[in-house]
Amino acid sequence: MLGNFTYSNPTKLYFGREALDGLNEELPKYGKNVLLVYGGGSIKKNGIYDKVVAILKANGKEIYEDAGVMPNPTSEKLNEGIERAKKAKADLILAVGGGSVCDYAKAVSVSVNCNVDAWDKYYIRYEDVTCDIVPVGCVLTMVGTGSEMNGGSVITNHQQKLKIGHVFGDKVFPKFSILNPEFTYTLPKYQMVSGIYDIMSHILEQYFSGTDDNTSDYIMEGLLRSLIHSANIAVENPSDYEARSNIMWTATWALNTLVAKGKTTDWMVHMLGQAVGAYTDATHGMTLSAVTMPYYKYILKYGTAKFARYAVNVWGVNPQGKTDTQVANEGLAVMESWMKKIGLIMNITQLGATKEMLDGMVKSTLVMDGGYKVMNEEDIRAVLQASF
Amino acid sequence: MLGNFTYSNPTKLYFGREALDGLNEELPKYGKNVLLVYGGGSIKKNGIYDKVVAILKANGKEIYEDAGVMPNPTSEKLNEGIERAKKAKADLILAVGGGSVCDYAKAVSVSVNCNVDAWDKYYIRYEDVTCDIVPVGCVLTMVGTGSEMNGGSVITNHQQKLKIGHVFGDKVFPKFSILNPEFTYTLPKYQMVSGIYDIMSHILEQYFSGTDDNTSDYIMEGLLRSLIHSANIAVENPSDYEARSNIMWTATWALNTLVAKGKTTDWMVHMLGQAVGAYTDATHGMTLSAVTMPYYKYILKYGTAKFARYAVNVWGVNPQGKTDTQVANEGLAVMESWMKKIGLIMNITQLGATKEMLDGMVKSTLVMDGGYKVMNEEDIRAVLQASF
Repeated sequence: MLGNFTYSNPTKLYFGREALDGLNEELPKYGKNVLLVYGGGSIKKNGIYDKVVAILKANGKEIYEDAGVMPNPTSEKLNEGIERAKKAKADLILAVGGGSVCDYAKAVSVSVNCNVDAWDKYYIRYEDVTCDIVPVGCVLTMVGTGSEMNGGSVITNHQQKLKIGHVFGDKVFPKFSILNPEFTYTLPKYQMVSGIYDIMSHILEQYFSGTDDNTSDYIMEGLLRSLIHSANIAVENPSDYEARSNIMWTATWALNTLVAKGKTTDWMVHMLGQAVGAYTDATHGMTLSAVTMPYYKYILKYGTAKFARYAVNVWGVNPQGKTDTQVANEGLAVMESWMKKIGLIMNITQLGATKEMLDGMVKSTLVMDGGYKVMNEEDIRAVLQASF
Repeated sequence: MLGNFTYSNPTKLYFGREALDGLNEELPKYGKNVLLVYGGGSIKKNGIYDKVVAILKANGKEIYEDAGVMPNPTSEKLNEGIERAKKAKADLILAVGGGSVCDYAKAVSVSVNCNVDAWDKYYIRYEDVTCDIVPVGCVLTMVGTGSEMNGGSVITNHQQKLKIGHVFGDKVFPKFSILNPEFTYTLPKYQMVSGIYDIMSHILEQYFSGTDDNTSDYIMEGLLRSLIHSANIAVENPSDYEARSNIMWTATWALNTLVAKGKTTDWMVHMLGQAVGAYTDATHGMTLSAVTMPYYKYILKYGTAKFARYAVNVWGVNPQGKTDTQVANEGLAVMESWMKKIGLIMNITQLGATKEMLDGMVKSTLVMDGGYKVMNEEDIRAVLQASF
């Protein structure tokens, strides 16, 4: 754990089949006006909307709605949400949905009391929050992003072909999140598997960085082994509560700042995936899986020791009598067949990317500097080229 | 993650060589009167006292002192501390020391505004906190108990020959803790190794319980592997910053409620160790190590599968061609030689226990019901008998 850091995570989590009851503990802490934020309306079909509204009413809340948050929330929609929150004089923004809805709620929460262009302030210029924040709570219906216990918020600007994340500080973390694994059962398998890979990529992108000895890496190996184990069960039986609950819990701890403490991180898979997402609007987790193998195969020679450790500690590769490079390659091969087995998309062509988009995607890819090889434009082009 | 649970941990951690600077961020949040709590005065020898006092003065604080907190804080000392805090009208209790000092500060914090017998209320009758809490901050100088990020507080009553812990809720958690691995360097090796085993026992006592599949168990396997790895380095070179920092971080996460989420826990090793501690006043971690092998060998047949998993995932035992019992026993054997190698005390005779104390220790041992075998008096006697 070299270097100085702080850790603070004030989000309260309610977990389990009865987690929604936690709303009754939380709602009295906030004023009357609640902006209820959700997506395309699936929560109306599966009954979660009715349950949440009943609890809000029982707690005497005035409900204002902001529906239609899309899987990749846009800067236009964000501006609309800010206006709605202003009109509602929202005391609490309650996001009911997946990580995108929770991300979006945070973006609204930091903008509603500012007179600025939110996209420009937070996503282009990465500015700090300078105005009063409206508290956010999340009821999670889809697992993957970890947005329920962090300050992350990704917004897409289609005009500028940019999909950018801002990581806000702990004041912007949801005050509480409701995690009921059963709320994720109605999700199509494609979305479930996509979420599983989003989790895995969050862990791997913090793992594949640095050469120091760090407790965080050991925690991540544990999380990865649990995730792989439970994913295998969930893919066969999506209603296996134990597996789905383990996946949900792993998702939260994969990206709530803990496993990055005291170490460097990479995040190039997310940067590549987000560039693909900005051009194709494809499901986030699938954009990550589609660029993963080309990227890891490209950087393996710069971080061989860590890839070899990964092969042994996570995938159970037997290292005896093999070089680090052999072990590392074997690990990626095992991972690749597992990815195919659980139904992940392994190339960007299947996500609708075309060769005509290549130049644009290369330009849209932000460069992070914590990986084993700092990517230049040529590197990015080579990885994306290999992802078709 | 079966069952319903909540997770909330509001403690802010400042970690690293510059962690003490965090005091400058925290102190302005509290009133003028600070009760500075510490132990036998080693912080005056190693310079930490002077550094803390300088920062308190620079922040305009009025300093009131409560020194002499012993390694196993007593109920008499607790009463004295409560009086001191009352007289000081303390706005903040700043504990500078090991887990015992931090434990003690919490015990004072929940009692100072009550007119009750604190020992009786919290440790005998396990009552909830019903009076206003004085906020606590900790500057850690010894690693092991995890007290820096939890609500635990162990107090000893010598007259009643009882050493009992109360686990307070998140409102009693330290508001902040300062974790500088270098502050632990001057500790004698015996104390360092004792702390390392306290950490290990915290993890194992949460691990060896239940037969369900749970992400928490995977996280614990990661923590254990990191701890063993870093302990081996620290025992050879106690000034290895990387190893000491990993151990410090592992200690915090071993007992800040995270790894118990969604699962049952045991805690019988602590109950046995605390009974030994009440009779011998021996160093906490060593009382745990001295009863560990007799206890685990005693319960192995009731939880063989988990002990076998432990052997493979933590100690790297090769399970091929062996029964679960063989693998489980091999794991304990490897663990036992490692414990001896790093210098742990392996029997209670060396801690000053005599056969005359046996009846009393058996009676002082509280019984927990989460382990693989719920202990009766005969079981406890057998385990303690085997610990001489």
